[in-house]
Amino acid sequence: MSEESRIKIIPLGGLGEIGKNMTAIRYQDSIVIIDAGLMFPEEELLGIDIVIPDISYLMENKDKVKAILLTHGHEDHVGGLPYVLKEINVPVYGSRLTLGIVEEKLKEHNLGSVQLQVVRPRDVISISPFEVEFIRVSHSIPDALAIALHTPLGIVLHTGDIKLDQTPVDGEVVDFRKFAELGEKGVLVMLGDSTNADKNGFTMSEKVVGNTFDELFGKCEGRIIVTTFASNVHRIQQVISTAQKYGRKVAVVGRSMVNNVRISSQLGYMNIPEGILIEMEDIGKYPAGEIVIVTTGSQGEPMSALTRIATADHRWVAIEPGDTVIISATPIPGNEKLVAKTVDLLFRQGAEVIYEKGAGVHVSGHASQEELKILLNLIRPRYFIPVHGEYRHLMKHAKLAESLGIPRSRIFVAENGQIIEVGKKKAVISGKVAAGKVLVDGLGVGDVGNIVLRDRKQLSQDGIMIVVVTINKDSGEVVAGPDIVSRGFVYVRESERLIENAKEKVNEALEICSKRNISEWAVIKAQVREKLGKHLFEKTGRRPMILPIIVEV
Amino acid sequence: MSEESRIKIIPLGGLGEIGKNMTAIRYQDSIVIIDAGLMFPEEELLGIDIVIPDISYLMENKDKVKAILLTHGHEDHVGGLPYVLKEINVPVYGSRLTLGIVEEKLKEHNLGSVQLQVVRPRDVISISPFEVEFIRVSHSIPDALAIALHTPLGIVLHTGDIKLDQTPVDGEVVDFRKFAELGEKGVLVMLGDSTNADKNGFTMSEKVVGNTFDELFGKCEGRIIVTTFASNVHRIQQVISTAQKYGRKVAVVGRSMVNNVRISSQLGYMNIPEGILIEMEDIGKYPAGEIVIVTTGSQGEPMSALTRIATADHRWVAIEPGDTVIISATPIPGNEKLVAKTVDLLFRQGAEVIYEKGAGVHVSGHASQEELKILLNLIRPRYFIPVHGEYRHLMKHAKLAESLGIPRSRIFVAENGQIIEVGKKKAVISGKVAAGKVLVDGLGVGDVGNIVLRDRKQLSQDGIMIVVVTINKDSGEVVAGPDIVSRGFVYVRESERLIENAKEKVNEALEICSKRNISEWAVIKAQVREKLGKHLFEKTGRRPMILPIIVEV
Repeated sequence: MSEESRIKIIPLGGLGEIGKNMTAIRYQDSIVIIDAGLMFPEEELLGIDIVIPDISYLMENKDKVKAILLTHGHEDHVGGLPYVLKEINVPVYGSRLTLGIVEEKLKEHNLGSVQLQVVRPRDVISISPFEVEFIRVSHSIPDALAIALHTPLGIVLHTGDIKLDQTPVDGEVVDFRKFAELGEKGVLVMLGDSTNADKNGFTMSEKVVGNTFDELFGKCEGRIIVTTFASNVHRIQQVISTAQKYGRKVAVVGRSMVNNVRISSQLGYMNIPEGILIEMEDIGKYPAGEIVIVTTGSQGEPMSALTRIATADHRWVAIEPGDTVIISATPIPGNEKLVAKTVDLLFRQGAEVIYEKGAGVHVSGHASQEELKILLNLIRPRYFIPVHGEYRHLMKHAKLAESLGIPRSRIFVAENGQIIEVGKKKAVISGKVAAGKVLVDGLGVGDVGNIVLRDRKQLSQDGIMIVVVTINKDSGEVVAGPDIVSRGFVYVRESERLIENAKEKVNEALEICSKRNISEWAVIKAQVREKLGKHLFEKTGRRPMILPIIVEV
Repeated sequence: MSEESRIKIIPLGGLGEIGKNMTAIRYQDSIVIIDAGLMFPEEELLGIDIVIPDISYLMENKDKVKAILLTHGHEDHVGGLPYVLKEINVPVYGSRLTLGIVEEKLKEHNLGSVQLQVVRPRDVISISPFEVEFIRVSHSIPDALAIALHTPLGIVLHTGDIKLDQTPVDGEVVDFRKFAELGEKGVLVMLGDSTNADKNGFTMSEKVVGNTFDELFGKCEGRIIVTTFASNVHRIQQVISTAQKYGRKVAVVGRSMVNNVRISSQLGYMNIPEGILIEMEDIGKYPAGEIVIVTTGSQGEPMSALTRIATADHRWVAIEPGDTVIISATPIPGNEKLVAKTVDLLFRQGAEVIYEKGAGVHVSGHASQEELKILLNLIRPRYFIPVHGEYRHLMKHAKLAESLGIPRSRIFVAENGQIIEVGKKKAVISGKVAAGKVLVDGLGVGDVGNIVLRDRKQLSQDGIMIVVVTINKDSGEVVAGPDIVSRGFVYVRESERLIENAKEKVNEALEICSKRNISEWAVIKAQVREKLGKHLFEKTGRRPMILPIIVEV
């Protein structure tokens, strides 16, 4: 079999990580991209705003890229899109809600001339040589799609983010029959969501949360404040529907929540009873028992509406005794302490807070093991690539597939950038393209690298001590200084003696250099760094960055 | 009732936080201290090593402090002890294991002359005017004690950290009957562990983990690597006992684990079968199926043995195919991502890793709601103070007590430093003493404050740009510079133009000052900071710290 007649599947993000999902699928000279997500930086990426996939491979094959296909509107699937489209402007296909969200995002980035193509479930569009079929799935945002790529060699099926919700809020159940039909035809490769592959059992239906809301709203006498992800349109819908049932008005608080409610109700994804929504300025006009507030801040984000409310810093909403706050979300890994802090602050303000796991106020949007088994058995792909997950999730998903009888040799636990070449009878990992993290810091895309991060790390731990020495350019004599300035190291006013001693150490270092007739600045600086560094560590147990600056006059 | 005849209970740590537990109990001119813990710094405390309680109140009343009573040997109860004893050298009472651990710690701090007094459960010692009674409890370290302070006004009972394990590994059940006896006599005030007050049901027995080990050890054919907290002596005991049953040798890896096994077996808290322990250098001499490794690193600590093993950086232990790693711990809040990363690395190295919640490889050391109810009902204190917990835990514990019929007016959800004055018939919060976080950074105790931390924060996000301008002290003319150096801001070699432009901006600022005849350095510096800051933000979207340094020659 010649290489030409194979399909190349190249994950550019989302493998070995949760976030920045992106997959390139190539057949001969045609490439389509599924999703273009971003990731929020891990703690050690100091100062970084967001992380996007490295798209060098796509840049090198710009002319071959035909389209970007989107599975749904979450940031980890569409957040990288503006950055990709700035480089590669191709048509973007997605569901109506997905593209509604994307449109807003592109506006913010002043990207006007992008071709956005709305597709509906079961639509089949032709992007030669592919036929692309879109399949309805359930997830924690409406209008999510799986994508089946009909290629000359067979079907490549990408589940996108998926759960098998048997009672979704909008009644639009996962298109099981389409999955069954594709399985029956024969799926060559399946790429499957692994996020919850280490959770046993089934993921609860979104309706469960509605039932809990019903129970809680029926009991609460004061105001009810619900926080959830701004994109969880069905969750917000359930808040509104339950409020309606109990005769409460709803105020939507937080910019992204307001935007999402606007977009999704305009596009018909929400059913908002006439007159139920009120402005937040008007909350005070109603009795406590007639108010529901739905707000951003479920992750304890420092600038979010809920955090402002919890710190008594919100313009319109302040906690009152009798308020009940429902945290209708679980912390994304890394946000646990922020969320806990918000809960504490809300309690301190006098609210009752419902946040516990098992309180029934949140369900995941991803399939657990039993659902994943059903999917794998429905589809029975020839080759299987677990995607969307840290390494342990991919491994668990692989083992699950193996336990169902898919041979281990046909399962690929891959890395971002690896090329999985799939032929009709054979599949191999045949190479690797550039892949990794592109760091976005302010306006800079990819300009912050290891050196800058390493410096930030050192600065963050023990601060900096700057030593300025002014020397005569002819004689080499010190004419001013050493001047010493420090930041983030010690509180200067209480450390005069330390600074004086530091100057002595610098002078000692300079004298040594002078005696030895050393005049190369690099050597002098190294000497200062060593002497002073050792001294400071002895005195303080800290290792600030030491930055000698020599000025010639 | 005169103030003199009241007991003052002053929590100095452990309220509104998990960690640095410390309570002062005062009657007239006598103070005893229960525990002196440390806390590991939260993320925003950049560069800080540990956090200890503020003991100003005790320093001001040094002559009144009679003793420090320890409930058990965990860091959050004894870790602050060296710092306290350096200031206030009083006798320390604790169980044999607790003091064994403390002794090691004091040696490291070169504190030799401390009077350590071993007590046993049911011992009653006299520290006038108190009679102090020690009561056996279960926790995740052996030899844990509750403390009943018999005072002239009544009994003050502090549970310490507690769970009601009905089948503890050492067979030493919580002294229920003593609690019942005290309850029957009448307890004036109870201070109760709130760590798990938001968990419903019962905390599982430590024996459950033993059963899981039994099942897993019976199944595994390769090596077994178990990681847990170094202080969880019973857990380590269960690893060793199960290894014995299945004919495996045990290697103990990691400094603190080795120390704790040594101390607790010397003191008789572990039962180590002859010849079962091997040195880690000798692991290779045995077949995989005959080896168990028990190691530190259950929190994914970067320097720990398990992390080194996971990164293939350990001198003696490397993961081999067929290894099973059991993570016998849950991540402490804030450590979730570190632990997840370690699990991923272990999978990548080829190990099978058992880490999931619900895998039965870990149980908590703290009582859940049903146990807390039992305790409260056994004791039925007149006044109740929930301790050891973030605010939400204290609130949940308070509500639990209320649900059992203890009037809300007799329950005190307090803050560190508040003085809870308790008389026979009345209790009030009567004031506040200094309390808070003392930050330890290197050798400095309490010298890092808000300014230093704020600087570290800014440096960590966008780095620093240093501008050195050298001026003639007579003419005020610029004779050298501006010289610009940056760290943690941009990668300098790729930013020559940015730096050149920055110099221009500085010159512009200097010219403005010169034209306006401004010669105050503070004003010139402010001008440079503003002009340059604005320029850099426009160009990069970042706000580095800008540090103008003016040198006079």
